[in-house]
Amino acid sequence: MQRRGALITPQIQDILKSANTVERIRELFADMHTYDIFILCENLEDDEIAECIKSLGIPVGIELFEQFDDERKKDIFNCFNKEWMADILEEMSPDERADFVVKLPDERVEEILPLVARAERIDIKKLINYKEDSAGSILTTEYAYLPQDVTAKAAIEKIKLQAFDRETIYYIYVIDHDRKLLGIVSLRDILVAPPQQTIREFMNPNVISVNVNDDKEEVARKFSQYDFLAMPVVDDASKLVGIVTVDDVMDVFEEEATEDIYKLGAAGEYLDYMKSHPFMLARQRTVWLLILVVVGCTSALILERNEHALQTAVALSFFIPLLLGAGGNAGTQSSTVVIRGLATEDIKLHDYLLVWRKEVMVGAMVGSIMAVLGALLALVIHSDPRLGLVVGSAMITSVMLAVSLGALLPMLFKKLKLDPALMSGPFITSIVDIVSLLVYFKIAMVILN
Amino acid sequence: MQRRGALITPQIQDILKSANTVERIRELFADMHTYDIFILCENLEDDEIAECIKSLGIPVGIELFEQFDDERKKDIFNCFNKEWMADILEEMSPDERADFVVKLPDERVEEILPLVARAERIDIKKLINYKEDSAGSILTTEYAYLPQDVTAKAAIEKIKLQAFDRETIYYIYVIDHDRKLLGIVSLRDILVAPPQQTIREFMNPNVISVNVNDDKEEVARKFSQYDFLAMPVVDDASKLVGIVTVDDVMDVFEEEATEDIYKLGAAGEYLDYMKSHPFMLARQRTVWLLILVVVGCTSALILERNEHALQTAVALSFFIPLLLGAGGNAGTQSSTVVIRGLATEDIKLHDYLLVWRKEVMVGAMVGSIMAVLGALLALVIHSDPRLGLVVGSAMITSVMLAVSLGALLPMLFKKLKLDPALMSGPFITSIVDIVSLLVYFKIAMVILN
Repeated sequence: MQRRGALITPQIQDILKSANTVERIRELFADMHTYDIFILCENLEDDEIAECIKSLGIPVGIELFEQFDDERKKDIFNCFNKEWMADILEEMSPDERADFVVKLPDERVEEILPLVARAERIDIKKLINYKEDSAGSILTTEYAYLPQDVTAKAAIEKIKLQAFDRETIYYIYVIDHDRKLLGIVSLRDILVAPPQQTIREFMNPNVISVNVNDDKEEVARKFSQYDFLAMPVVDDASKLVGIVTVDDVMDVFEEEATEDIYKLGAAGEYLDYMKSHPFMLARQRTVWLLILVVVGCTSALILERNEHALQTAVALSFFIPLLLGAGGNAGTQSSTVVIRGLATEDIKLHDYLLVWRKEVMVGAMVGSIMAVLGALLALVIHSDPRLGLVVGSAMITSVMLAVSLGALLPMLFKKLKLDPALMSGPFITSIVDIVSLLVYFKIAMVILN
Repeated sequence: MQRRGALITPQIQDILKSANTVERIRELFADMHTYDIFILCENLEDDEIAECIKSLGIPVGIELFEQFDDERKKDIFNCFNKEWMADILEEMSPDERADFVVKLPDERVEEILPLVARAERIDIKKLINYKEDSAGSILTTEYAYLPQDVTAKAAIEKIKLQAFDRETIYYIYVIDHDRKLLGIVSLRDILVAPPQQTIREFMNPNVISVNVNDDKEEVARKFSQYDFLAMPVVDDASKLVGIVTVDDVMDVFEEEATEDIYKLGAAGEYLDYMKSHPFMLARQRTVWLLILVVVGCTSALILERNEHALQTAVALSFFIPLLLGAGGNAGTQSSTVVIRGLATEDIKLHDYLLVWRKEVMVGAMVGSIMAVLGALLALVIHSDPRLGLVVGSAMITSVMLAVSLGALLPMLFKKLKLDPALMSGPFITSIVDIVSLLVYFKIAMVILN
């Protein structure tokens, strides 16, 4: 499978070497969406991409620059002279720019910042101070706003003037001279309103907003509940500082799902896979494996303690993988369902008794089937009905304990304000391993001895 | 933790019993977002909610109705008389309506459909025929459109007339008399265009659209790449049949993440947890557990075959849980990272050799650490250096095999056009169990015997 842009790469390189680069590049990419231009340019060298950006000029070139990830942005950025660097920082959208600037070396920022226009300079300094993962870190300051006493007709004229550089003009925020948020109107409301009516008369004063310090995942959840296209962000004094738009929220959704999936697989924090050195990846994963090894050692010690039982009835050891496998998987299923349910708020914390009861019933049904199968297998392999009884009883006990732990531990973690996803399959499996072995030998002692 | 709406429930019930219900309900919920009204009404009885919906009238009542999930919608719907049922079907947004209608019993639909206005009746019949999970299943037919030869000034007037019942008026689709899609303009473009310019002169003819039969996950991915608010859906003859809006796409993202997480936990298809009977949940999960039991039986048989080795060196059995735990977890980590990478397109299929090499290097590093720890533990517990050597060698071999299988099996599945998420942690763990046991006894035989 070839990357989509590879075919056109030589053609672009030819144009870059020709006399009338600017016209030909503009013609080639005319009317195309920047994401498609990005796909076609991806395979070019950094300095060639910089040439394309310069040829496309403002704003298309800047939009193209924004499509690259932060690492690549840095490499391309270094191919520009200082004046162009300042232009890029001035013209980038404020939220993208803040993310990018924090990743540049401090000396570089100090070098370029004086060349950037004052308004953008202040904006950069403000935005890079918001906490990572806060609403502030994904907001843009380019929102459309109106005072409350203009008429609908005048409002349209005012919005036309703002239309060029605002992230969205479809929601307009009504603020007073102190930037306090008074209400919200949609462009649709303004269009259909009688021309002489003032904004105050038909704005919605009941604005749903988020605080700059709110967690961005919480902001994303509000978006999907209310079906907004943009949401205002206010500071502690209820003053409007910016807006969060739905395209940034979609990225948050994707990031959040990836983080959760990594935690569920005990794979550590998310790293950009294709770009990370194996050493980094190994370091990420070793932490978790070591925790799990400590648990594994406990299993080894339990078995060592029961050396005598294993020596007298070696067949006991045959069913250990089966027993641990069934318990571990049943626990993984419960914890998966509960962790995801808590994340999407389908399962609420105060329902813990209900959830537990449900899981115990599921465990009883599933466990019985497993117990019968385990007992049958023991009979077939070893033709000793007492061993069948041991395996069967251990199996159902282990599955019941597994589903209970799988359901309750994530809820307990949530209650303690820890991330429930940490109580994921691999962790539950390890705990269930220990519990199941203890149960197994206890039952074996009672029945066989 | 109390549900948010519980406190206000008695107050609403009082209003419903009072004389001037309509005015008081409207006053209570004035200017509130429908999601917030929904939260306050959630705990009412079905017939009480129907009363609220009637009092709020069209369109707010219908918007409130749309907030409930399909099961609850059905219960509330049954509290209305036939005229109201027809009104609700006429006024619901087309995509929500199509989803709801397919879940009603056929007799009921036949009973009400004749009462529904002709245009909506045709629309319902058309939309319920699209395949589940296709772009057609999430589209709405309420889009704004324009012919190409009107001026910007006239366009604004035309849009005002459409503003009331369209899902969005911020993207306007330019179509010919045959509904063929010619271009797209944003309301922003129209506002800033010279009033006498025709749409044709400044529309973007390069429209990115999806086909009605495209998978909805693919549609969601395009949205996040292009940062759209809405996207046109065309049929095989390039005729516009509707649009998909970003709010529906966010729901697709959430559904998709849930499905993937369930598969990764081998928890079966997604079911609404709080509403499903434990029997349903058990049935969902048993299928997977049974597959895993078959694998577990193989482990038991391998151990039975090695009964002699286990009898002579009972200490071999002590390290089985540790060995299987380490291998299983290392495999789960690899498959988690690869499956998620394939889903977000961070990892591409043609990079399989690169990914495998990376995982082998990670496995070598992680495996060495685990091997040293395992060997030390064997020495401490059993003070036999040969046993340490067996455990250490088995550990590193098992981890290396685990990461290779974890990386390659999901990619193989993707290549075979199967869902890579099926090659999840629990499955990899089971396969690694078998392989590790075989390796363990082979090594033990060579070293100890």
